[in-house]
Amino acid sequence: MRVLGVDPGSRNTGYGCIEVEGSSIRQISNGTLKLTGYDKGDGSLAVPLERRLQLLFEGLCGVVDQCQPHAIVVEKIFFAKNAMSALKLGHARGVVLLCSALKGLRFFEYSATEVKRCVAGHGHADKDAVAKMVQRIVGPYRFHTADASDALALAIAHAMLHRERRSPSVGLT
Amino acid sequence: MRVLGVDPGSRNTGYGCIEVEGSSIRQISNGTLKLTGYDKGDGSLAVPLERRLQLLFEGLCGVVDQCQPHAIVVEKIFFAKNAMSALKLGHARGVVLLCSALKGLRFFEYSATEVKRCVAGHGHADKDAVAKMVQRIVGPYRFHTADASDALALAIAHAMLHRERRSPSVGLT
Repeated sequence: MRVLGVDPGSRNTGYGCIEVEGSSIRQISNGTLKLTGYDKGDGSLAVPLERRLQLLFEGLCGVVDQCQPHAIVVEKIFFAKNAMSALKLGHARGVVLLCSALKGLRFFEYSATEVKRCVAGHGHADKDAVAKMVQRIVGPYRFHTADASDALALAIAHAMLHRERRSPSVGLT
Repeated sequence: MRVLGVDPGSRNTGYGCIEVEGSSIRQISNGTLKLTGYDKGDGSLAVPLERRLQLLFEGLCGVVDQCQPHAIVVEKIFFAKNAMSALKLGHARGVVLLCSALKGLRFFEYSATEVKRCVAGHGHADKDAVAKMVQRIVGPYRFHTADASDALALAIAHAMLHRERRSPSVGLT
């Protein structure tokens, strides 16, 4: 089973693909889709939002074609700092969901707490602890960005949770 | 010039296309893309979000192919009631923006106040007043839903504002 984790953003979208065979997890690929243009000096981004979403869509479809995952996993959102940042996140997230539907992939969401608990052992682990565990699980592999590491953490969490759900005896033995 | 107004939502997305020739505005089409399934009795929607976004994407691309607009217009969002409703709106809005980019269309946004001022004469007009003016401008034409009427109002506002911007003497004569 191949799983693609995606950490969507309208500036950078991280992704990480793993292959799961029994209890073994092997990394296939990780990277970051850079969607912004140059800063014109006034903090503005030269690439308009609709073009960035197009870059995200085409980039992610390319990653799916290359990695051939069976499922896409993103973070489940329960709240956001404010409505405008949620709106921006929603744009990028909508494109990721669309890509999963068009490519006929299964789609899963897990909360940040679930991901931390699976990967680092407890739901309040900090970002560094999660990144270190991702590194330990998938081997000495350089991550393109923290977004890519976060995306791999999502894929790993899915592999672990999926395994637990398929094996109800886990925890009872 | 043909303009397609879109009122995005993850349950219903309204659209309305007009043709503008000088000061004349003629309606081409209006409708609503219904993205939800049946209610299972517990208020839940049978169609998962990623599938609804796919229906929106394919439906809107179909409308673009049929109506051949030069531009897509959506409402500019400055704030939202809460972060979760903004996130949901963002998903559908992201798909509309993606569609405009993939189809090579120009993309415009106007605030609700701008639309009301253009269509109904003042920025605090209520929904009924705007709908009546839309009806008056595009002729006796049945609207599929209020979403379709709102989408037509966006297209009409763009036609009026675009005309004003192209003719700086307007208001001075």
